[in-house]
Amino acid sequence: MERVKPRTLSGFMELLPPKQAQMEKLLSVLRETYARYGFTPLDTPAIEASEVLLAKGGGETEKQIYRFNKGDHDLALRFDLTVPLAKYVALNYGQLTFPFRRYQIGKVWRGERAQRGRFREFYQADIDVIGDGALDILNEAEIPAIIYQTFTRLGLKRFRIRVNNRKVLNGFFALLGLTERAQDVMRTIDKLDKIGPDKVRELLLSECGVDETAADEILRFITVAGTSAEKLQFLEGWRGRNEVFDLGLDELRTVAAYLPEFGVPEENFEIDLTIARGLDYYTGTVYETVMTDHPEIGSVCSGGRYDNLAEYYTNKALPGVGISIGLTRLFYVLQEQGMLSEDVLTAPADVLILPMTDELSGAIALATKLRSAGLRVQLYGEKKKFKAKIAYADKLAIPFVIFLGEDELREGKCSVKDMATGEQQTLTADEAEAMLTAAIAEKNAGAVIREN
Amino acid sequence: MERVKPRTLSGFMELLPPKQAQMEKLLSVLRETYARYGFTPLDTPAIEASEVLLAKGGGETEKQIYRFNKGDHDLALRFDLTVPLAKYVALNYGQLTFPFRRYQIGKVWRGERAQRGRFREFYQADIDVIGDGALDILNEAEIPAIIYQTFTRLGLKRFRIRVNNRKVLNGFFALLGLTERAQDVMRTIDKLDKIGPDKVRELLLSECGVDETAADEILRFITVAGTSAEKLQFLEGWRGRNEVFDLGLDELRTVAAYLPEFGVPEENFEIDLTIARGLDYYTGTVYETVMTDHPEIGSVCSGGRYDNLAEYYTNKALPGVGISIGLTRLFYVLQEQGMLSEDVLTAPADVLILPMTDELSGAIALATKLRSAGLRVQLYGEKKKFKAKIAYADKLAIPFVIFLGEDELREGKCSVKDMATGEQQTLTADEAEAMLTAAIAEKNAGAVIREN
Repeated sequence: MERVKPRTLSGFMELLPPKQAQMEKLLSVLRETYARYGFTPLDTPAIEASEVLLAKGGGETEKQIYRFNKGDHDLALRFDLTVPLAKYVALNYGQLTFPFRRYQIGKVWRGERAQRGRFREFYQADIDVIGDGALDILNEAEIPAIIYQTFTRLGLKRFRIRVNNRKVLNGFFALLGLTERAQDVMRTIDKLDKIGPDKVRELLLSECGVDETAADEILRFITVAGTSAEKLQFLEGWRGRNEVFDLGLDELRTVAAYLPEFGVPEENFEIDLTIARGLDYYTGTVYETVMTDHPEIGSVCSGGRYDNLAEYYTNKALPGVGISIGLTRLFYVLQEQGMLSEDVLTAPADVLILPMTDELSGAIALATKLRSAGLRVQLYGEKKKFKAKIAYADKLAIPFVIFLGEDELREGKCSVKDMATGEQQTLTADEAEAMLTAAIAEKNAGAVIREN
Repeated sequence: MERVKPRTLSGFMELLPPKQAQMEKLLSVLRETYARYGFTPLDTPAIEASEVLLAKGGGETEKQIYRFNKGDHDLALRFDLTVPLAKYVALNYGQLTFPFRRYQIGKVWRGERAQRGRFREFYQADIDVIGDGALDILNEAEIPAIIYQTFTRLGLKRFRIRVNNRKVLNGFFALLGLTERAQDVMRTIDKLDKIGPDKVRELLLSECGVDETAADEILRFITVAGTSAEKLQFLEGWRGRNEVFDLGLDELRTVAAYLPEFGVPEENFEIDLTIARGLDYYTGTVYETVMTDHPEIGSVCSGGRYDNLAEYYTNKALPGVGISIGLTRLFYVLQEQGMLSEDVLTAPADVLILPMTDELSGAIALATKLRSAGLRVQLYGEKKKFKAKIAYADKLAIPFVIFLGEDELREGKCSVKDMATGEQQTLTADEAEAMLTAAIAEKNAGAVIREN
């Protein structure tokens, strides 16, 4: 037979089972955390009409998109989860209840140039709250709590949520007479982390048409040092001169004010006036999240407040606030940094049952009993030597093996071996169930990320 | 602004939030059940090289597939989860441990003609056990237990797992001198449910080149009545005349023998000699699952034993056994039949907290406390009239609302309203947590499918 060489496309993540098991833990923590904050899961098609996906049109997106014809239809794969959300909300407006809180975790596709750590197919994990006409600032104030809980439950401790407010920046730029150039200035200062203050100053002069005094003023303003309280104090010094600025400052105060009640420790939060976010459509609070020990990775969770989710589809005003995690990239980075915990159970089963007799009734009944108790049990039926059977459990890192021989069956017992310690106990089925349930619960308590 | 009409492509399922919540319950039951049987989750790309996906080539598949070019690459969307599994196992053969047990729940795409209840994008939920060179019959015997557990945990009671063995059929056809025509005969008798015995007889004569005596013999054989035990007894009458038949009969006996220990009740299982499955590649046990009250729907979970999973990619012999659920179609059918339970919680939150004061610290602290306890809590911050706030909870079917006014805050209490009964209690935060946790656990205990 002529054979085809099996391969997976470059830029497409496909994990071996133990890694996939870690990815699943990550996914399940996200689903659970988002649900606790009252977000409902959504699932939209991978394929949409190109006309719908590209309603906003233009730019990088159009070049990167996977677009094709099927019959008479001009179709494309979604390249993010925001456009499908906008479509969904516009389409189902009359059947949704606002504020509409949804999370979506799904794959998106972008045909970027393949390079290490860049993926053409990747998971995004998004949450958004959409208001009908208006949306209270409380929704913006809650976002840091969601980010904090998510990363904490994943096992990360050393991270910082950086928050700014676009109205503060826009108001400040207005005071400098730069309203017309605000978007360009915003995009330039957003590069501060990457290119440093000197380059930003240079670009402000050469590309944004800002004069030297204003450029210095901007850099002094955004890089002001201090705690969040001190920065708010500094901003108060500018109050009363621009309405938009004052509104932004009030919003920033509200976001900072409730952190203790939301359970967010001070060291995981920071007002950072340099955060601007590249995208045009943010209008209020903006968020970035950095791993303190790995600033080079950039933000692992970003988002912000916007005023018009679905303006390309409807004339309804649909303001919202949302954040997104690039999950595939995050997973890749954690793996590269050796930050995926090896203490997490990645085996396909908690227990491997090895029957030592030809008649299997006893082994099967025990497997059924343990499964009913919620344990993940594999029955091993292959005709192999004892050594090969044990090696199987070993290779898969299955933590417990149960032997069932004539003696055990006669006595209504089983031998349970802890593969980590080598310790072996002879127990009744009830005792084995209790022991294993407790041991596995303990092993499952650990988080998927560990810090070095 | 010029607007694009928002729409979702026909043949693509996109659910409203309450329906999506039901779908998620379905997905989570599947994930959990498969895990209990020692299957590890796998996730392969949606896009593969066309050459890889179409290695087997030909037929309906090639017409239906979504195929396109990106740069120099000839790509396609996967149309099932079996071909990607074959690729994965061939590609990672050296790094996998056999038997390799994996489940995969994911979307696949087929550009079929759109019609009611047919989807172009749909979820498949597959499990497979792959052996390296050999695979014990115990794996085949375990499959009915997995099917039984899956549907039982989903809430279905009235269903039947129908099992047959291809070796029994092939051996029997050999006895009739029909070895050469076995595949055609198999495909013909597989239509029995749909077209009835007279038509099958006609086709056997006209299209399979079977003579009248043999056709009658075949129909008598496959439609023999009785319990599973009686059918096995009937088959014993044919023993000793064909090796393949005898081997198949032994396998069928083994599959039936362990059902009690696997916890499968007799009424949910049936040996059915008419089950053949259309696909050529099955070689041993084959499975179908029918909803007793809805035979017209056909099989909702099917599969079987095969000998060569990855022959198009590798010369390794990789026998396996697997089953698949067409999840999107199943969900559609359950919905059409009114079989999705309305008692399942589909609200985005368990509790809605309505602060009645401007200062929100107390409300936020309570939300944080209840979320830590695992409850799904939404904080409502919109400036609306009281009536509109209550209507919000009502529309979303959120089961509990908590009011926090000046009085409650002063006394360190909160008012909890059960939206179903209208009953309202004033409780401390600890009392509210305990009450809500118990009430929500009870509401979550129900299954997603209900029989009428």
